[in-house]
Amino acid sequence: MKQPTKAPADDNAIEQVAGNGLLHRRALLGRSVAVAGVLGSGIGPGATGAAAEPLVEPPWGLTIGDNSPAYQTPSKFAKNVVRTLANPDFRPGSSIARTPHHLLEGATTPNGVHFTIVHTGIPDIDPGRHRLLIHGLVKRPLVFTLDALLRYPTTSRVSFMECGGNSAPLFSPKPIQDNVQALHGLASCAEWTGVKLSVLLEECGIDPRAKWFIAEGADAPHLMRSVPLAKGLDDAMVVFYQNGEPLMPGNGFPMRLLLPGWEGNLNIKYLRRIKLVTEPAMSFWESQVYTEPMPNGKAYQFTFFNEVKSFITRPSPGHELKQPGIYEISGIAYSGRGKITKVMVSADGGRSWAEAALQAPVMSKAFTRFRMPWRWNGGPALLQSRAWDDQGYFQPTRAEFVAARGQLDAVPPVMAFRNHHFNAVTSWAVDPHGTVKHAYA
Amino acid sequence: MKQPTKAPADDNAIEQVAGNGLLHRRALLGRSVAVAGVLGSGIGPGATGAAAEPLVEPPWGLTIGDNSPAYQTPSKFAKNVVRTLANPDFRPGSSIARTPHHLLEGATTPNGVHFTIVHTGIPDIDPGRHRLLIHGLVKRPLVFTLDALLRYPTTSRVSFMECGGNSAPLFSPKPIQDNVQALHGLASCAEWTGVKLSVLLEECGIDPRAKWFIAEGADAPHLMRSVPLAKGLDDAMVVFYQNGEPLMPGNGFPMRLLLPGWEGNLNIKYLRRIKLVTEPAMSFWESQVYTEPMPNGKAYQFTFFNEVKSFITRPSPGHELKQPGIYEISGIAYSGRGKITKVMVSADGGRSWAEAALQAPVMSKAFTRFRMPWRWNGGPALLQSRAWDDQGYFQPTRAEFVAARGQLDAVPPVMAFRNHHFNAVTSWAVDPHGTVKHAYA
Repeated sequence: MKQPTKAPADDNAIEQVAGNGLLHRRALLGRSVAVAGVLGSGIGPGATGAAAEPLVEPPWGLTIGDNSPAYQTPSKFAKNVVRTLANPDFRPGSSIARTPHHLLEGATTPNGVHFTIVHTGIPDIDPGRHRLLIHGLVKRPLVFTLDALLRYPTTSRVSFMECGGNSAPLFSPKPIQDNVQALHGLASCAEWTGVKLSVLLEECGIDPRAKWFIAEGADAPHLMRSVPLAKGLDDAMVVFYQNGEPLMPGNGFPMRLLLPGWEGNLNIKYLRRIKLVTEPAMSFWESQVYTEPMPNGKAYQFTFFNEVKSFITRPSPGHELKQPGIYEISGIAYSGRGKITKVMVSADGGRSWAEAALQAPVMSKAFTRFRMPWRWNGGPALLQSRAWDDQGYFQPTRAEFVAARGQLDAVPPVMAFRNHHFNAVTSWAVDPHGTVKHAYA
Repeated sequence: MKQPTKAPADDNAIEQVAGNGLLHRRALLGRSVAVAGVLGSGIGPGATGAAAEPLVEPPWGLTIGDNSPAYQTPSKFAKNVVRTLANPDFRPGSSIARTPHHLLEGATTPNGVHFTIVHTGIPDIDPGRHRLLIHGLVKRPLVFTLDALLRYPTTSRVSFMECGGNSAPLFSPKPIQDNVQALHGLASCAEWTGVKLSVLLEECGIDPRAKWFIAEGADAPHLMRSVPLAKGLDDAMVVFYQNGEPLMPGNGFPMRLLLPGWEGNLNIKYLRRIKLVTEPAMSFWESQVYTEPMPNGKAYQFTFFNEVKSFITRPSPGHELKQPGIYEISGIAYSGRGKITKVMVSADGGRSWAEAALQAPVMSKAFTRFRMPWRWNGGPALLQSRAWDDQGYFQPTRAEFVAARGQLDAVPPVMAFRNHHFNAVTSWAVDPHGTVKHAYA
């Protein structure tokens, strides 16, 4: 469809709040932004352009459609709105499936495309035979069936989940040319329902010597992580439902640990055992995998929090701006420490910034959608977002982050990014053709 | 698993807030409610009962699991967490798929099991060829492609959707013995993202003579409904995303009208045309289908609102209470006029009531999950819930509702319930065997 371009004089009348076309979020109300086809003026394929009745009858208006399935799935025309698989041939090792943020909107990640990482495939667990044991430094070790757990008081909360290795490609010294799914697709957000872990721990009776607990999964890797007991008594949960339905098999069916705001692998899936202990175990995952090498040769360990982060999902690499004019900039912000309070957006690589609108309700440790209208003038633009949370943290620039944490000396193979917790500003460069690319700025 | 029963003396020490075992929602904190198996005391199938290491290694802990799919779907052990189909053989006529509330939790309906009703099957619409026309009493008729619509400012909101015919089986003079999915399964709730209709109408320029609009779908029935323009300028939206991903084909892919809180069929799916007019059309759907016959022989027409309603989903018919003790009562409340402010629960058929906890955040025109702990003493119980909203409306008792709206003289075939907007209190009877049945009270 050929779309009319507004006269420059009209465009300039719209209130600009920062450089290179960022517009006040209420600037468009009551104004034509002229991105639709005017009736009778060449409205393109699928419409006749006739003044009185411009729409041709589409084939789906003349035929019987499909039967209703018991469990519905997306249209075949949305077949690209799926996860990308790092190991599609299922070779030995980890399977990683990333969320297609560039094709999603809102603050919910639907269950079909919630990211997953598993190390020996997805176990096929019979919930009737699964058990959760809480033992160690407790007065009364207890074994719970799923039926028993569902008799305790349940609660729901929205929480994002993010792999510590999400965004690791941005440790590269040059911008990896891929899309937001490849770069930031190991973060998702859902409503989780289950029982607060504190309720179950109190049911067992906590020995005062206990300061940590070790959580272990039922699948073959028996992945285990050590967690401070204080988190277990704060907002930790044992959850059974994800966006209303039983957990997806890749997300821990029939139950997983939820540690809101803490890195993904700590949220043990297929949760089978919780052992209260005096100090952390130094398992493979603690000592080998989930550490963060520093420029000085030392490494952070037990870095639990997913720090405050944001990225623009629309426009982003793979999208194309077909002509100058009004667009919406839309993205996701989140913090493992609390609520997002502010997201600033730049269209000129950080020289000027304007505050984006945050979609209500803004919830603690949950995805927050931010949006800002933008008039692209057809020239080069460098789009960035930067987030703040209510605990006093804010997202570093890339330069600040690299100064503190370093970056790699050369561009490695994709699977060799062995650092974690990248949370600096991401930049998308728009060129005069309307192509969007990953850039450093 | 055999579960120990608490001594009656202990039970009685827990604070009761209404008759027949309703407990204060904080009464259980710090107390054993003893629904788990004590280690070494006969913890049932799947566990050995040995004191030091009670869990046998399950088969899924010893084998490689399954590959990760691009779009994940539920476990085969959750195969009953699906929609029931009123017309599984896809005979000519309507296809109705109902949400399994008794197997869900939280306030989100996952996309796979969001209810759908279609009249000639689900159309297979190419979003690249789909067009939305806004015409009639406007200054400038416009045709929108999906790409064009996505350049306008978008917004997200959580909103329930409910068929006017949901709960119609409760017009029966005797309680239909079926589950909450059959009785109330034509209501679901999702996060929807799209463009406010007011933005698009203003883009076209509204002729002051316009007071209504006719919205029409692109599928074969060309279902059309008349909507007051005031709703279109209030919170109406044209939406493209459902819980973050493109709309499900049965829910209107690639776009639908969203009229938060108004009966489902008005939220035209496959939205193709909006025509601004001076008065409502009297289409088949207005004059024939969506009216509400009254006891006096007249009928309500243009009854848009889904009135305040609630029902208990757990326990509900099909669930079984295996022994006396602590359970959680959990359910859903919603109002098409605003926010839920209060849900009262009774375990003795309405003789006494206690206020349930509402899961935050409570959002306007959205499902609100309510919960209350309950101690079942093993005797008969009659579970009810009753909701209030912030607009001064509350859910009628069955007697009040029948006095105003009537009920049928005889139990009809299921598809013959031709009345709408039933919103009275639902009752579940628990018998001494722990069986839960639909009852009138």
